[in-house]
Amino acid sequence: MKLTISKNKLNDAIQQVAKAASTRPAIPILGGIKIDVNHQFVTLTASDTDISIQSFITVEQEDIINAQVEKPGSVVLPAKFFVEIVKKLPSEEVSIEVGAQYQTIIRSGSTEIQMVGLDPEEFPILPSIEQDDILQIPGDLIRSMIRQTVLAASTSEQTPILTGVLWRLHESELKFIATDRHRLASRTTKVDVDSNYNFSNIVISAKTLNELSRLIPDQNTLIDIVVADNQVLFKMDNVLFYTRILDGTYPDTSKIIPNVFETELVLDTKKVMDAIDRAYLMSREEKTNIVRLATMEDGQIEISSSSTELGRVTEQLEAKEMKGDPLRIAFNSKYMLDVLKVIDSEQLFFGFTGPMRPIIIRPMDHDFSMYVILPYRTTV
Amino acid sequence: MKLTISKNKLNDAIQQVAKAASTRPAIPILGGIKIDVNHQFVTLTASDTDISIQSFITVEQEDIINAQVEKPGSVVLPAKFFVEIVKKLPSEEVSIEVGAQYQTIIRSGSTEIQMVGLDPEEFPILPSIEQDDILQIPGDLIRSMIRQTVLAASTSEQTPILTGVLWRLHESELKFIATDRHRLASRTTKVDVDSNYNFSNIVISAKTLNELSRLIPDQNTLIDIVVADNQVLFKMDNVLFYTRILDGTYPDTSKIIPNVFETELVLDTKKVMDAIDRAYLMSREEKTNIVRLATMEDGQIEISSSSTELGRVTEQLEAKEMKGDPLRIAFNSKYMLDVLKVIDSEQLFFGFTGPMRPIIIRPMDHDFSMYVILPYRTTV
Repeated sequence: MKLTISKNKLNDAIQQVAKAASTRPAIPILGGIKIDVNHQFVTLTASDTDISIQSFITVEQEDIINAQVEKPGSVVLPAKFFVEIVKKLPSEEVSIEVGAQYQTIIRSGSTEIQMVGLDPEEFPILPSIEQDDILQIPGDLIRSMIRQTVLAASTSEQTPILTGVLWRLHESELKFIATDRHRLASRTTKVDVDSNYNFSNIVISAKTLNELSRLIPDQNTLIDIVVADNQVLFKMDNVLFYTRILDGTYPDTSKIIPNVFETELVLDTKKVMDAIDRAYLMSREEKTNIVRLATMEDGQIEISSSSTELGRVTEQLEAKEMKGDPLRIAFNSKYMLDVLKVIDSEQLFFGFTGPMRPIIIRPMDHDFSMYVILPYRTTV
Repeated sequence: MKLTISKNKLNDAIQQVAKAASTRPAIPILGGIKIDVNHQFVTLTASDTDISIQSFITVEQEDIINAQVEKPGSVVLPAKFFVEIVKKLPSEEVSIEVGAQYQTIIRSGSTEIQMVGLDPEEFPILPSIEQDDILQIPGDLIRSMIRQTVLAASTSEQTPILTGVLWRLHESELKFIATDRHRLASRTTKVDVDSNYNFSNIVISAKTLNELSRLIPDQNTLIDIVVADNQVLFKMDNVLFYTRILDGTYPDTSKIIPNVFETELVLDTKKVMDAIDRAYLMSREEKTNIVRLATMEDGQIEISSSSTELGRVTEQLEAKEMKGDPLRIAFNSKYMLDVLKVIDSEQLFFGFTGPMRPIIIRPMDHDFSMYVILPYRTTV
């Protein structure tokens, strides 16, 4: 293998795939980036047990020559050092030459780097995925669906299935659900797909979805998504992103969600978020994050928290609408803030069915998002 | 105590003093911020065992009214919560009222906070300092003198005196020296002061000097510095910063600095920094940071590092000037980069007296800075 390549193009591709290289690889090859060179493409691949990312650099793109390939071939280079050194090379042009035993020489300006390369035959093979049904979703939409659900996924490895986000496709509606048993986030969208194409129990790690989010280009292009038996493939412009589907059965969450309420509130998102944020500061000192919400006589609500050592925060807030029974309820303010930060609507609906029953939060301007937070059982 | 005060003014003053409040106070009062209110000033003070910071808000400043004082008085409030909550208060105006047992009520908009205040009589008293001799130094200069020396101070508490920067005033020349026994940084400046006013063995914690740096206003105003027996006081516009002088005798460093060289180099700062930075990346993987420098026949130097597992980086660099014997030397590249990053000159002088003797680094355009790095004893 021998080629000269644009430093920036190489660096961009390295940055895209690097996240999939193991930082503590079980065997050295898993901590590497594979480079495959032919006369059309320079392809970079990194893969740990959960995700694989592949990025393509076109050798000649219209009139732009990104690389000059003298001899096709492959090599695997240790990711960590390779990622850092390419960024810092002195010239805009980088030459890479692989010799005997995958000994690799990288040259740029008056810098010469000898690297111990590894055998590309030992690199993991990417899953082969049959691309029968393809979901096409705009990049911005998938990014906001991820952002609006991952917050409720569990971070505890005790129940691995809950560290993921559940994907369901039913009658051309795609639904994401995440829950850690204390709170739940759900987000749906209509997709342009044959209504006979359905799936359920597809669960993807929330951490992986966050990685995917970072790779989705800022230009709002369509992302092709292929859901296979145990893998999902995301196809972006010049990047392929493969992720494993989590094993296990996602719990049925439909029963915990009430749809008749004893108390209903409509609140201004920014105002309620700021008020809870101040109460949270005090509740955090108690390490409980308990904040209380109470309806008052005059269409106001009171938000409060207290700490035995520090004192008490009391906030008054006008409800845009208030219906039903008077209410006193306590909840984890951190969980509530997580929801309020991502919900992207100016006014919110809050539905309550008494102080011991789940709190429902929904945007006022659409039906695509729904959040549930379980209250604290506390003497209010 | 009862007053109304501008949230921004209060917040600025809190941010200035907060660093001096203990984060893990031995007694609660040391984790507090003291507020003293009279009809001229609202004064905030925080103090741990090492530093004390005081910030003044003028009640009426020309035509601007920063505070309305109804009843003078004092209280101590727990710093951590107070710092965070004031920032987030909803209105531009904050009222503070202290009642029985220092119970404090803070109001802003429709937010009410009750805080458990502490007795100001129990708060540490600031050192009284006789202000006979005052050093006046421009803020920018003191900031760059700090930045250009603290890097060489020790971070190990095993030799506490070396965690400080030595200050010496001799014949109107102020000199800062820092060393951790592996490297040394020195920076001097002429000061406008009576040549009979001298001091030596004034050692101030490098960490404290970094804190001071952050408080020095961006406008390049003069800072008044008062050096007393065991305290140094820095007087800025509306802030007083007191620091303890470290106990102990600073070692005599003058003997380790050679002034006759066997090999002399002049190098372009940016080029040598970039080359060493790339070599550092590989040396770091070996956990040694060893980088080698060798003079070559043709007026070039070679900078290199190697790792048994990864490979080798080799850099060639043209010397602007080269005099004396051929040289091969090895050093800690991290220490060298620390120097190259702060030295602020386009070309640098490097003086060598053989592979086992200290390396001297000086800017080419002035004599105010000097750095020493001890080489590694290694088979080059």
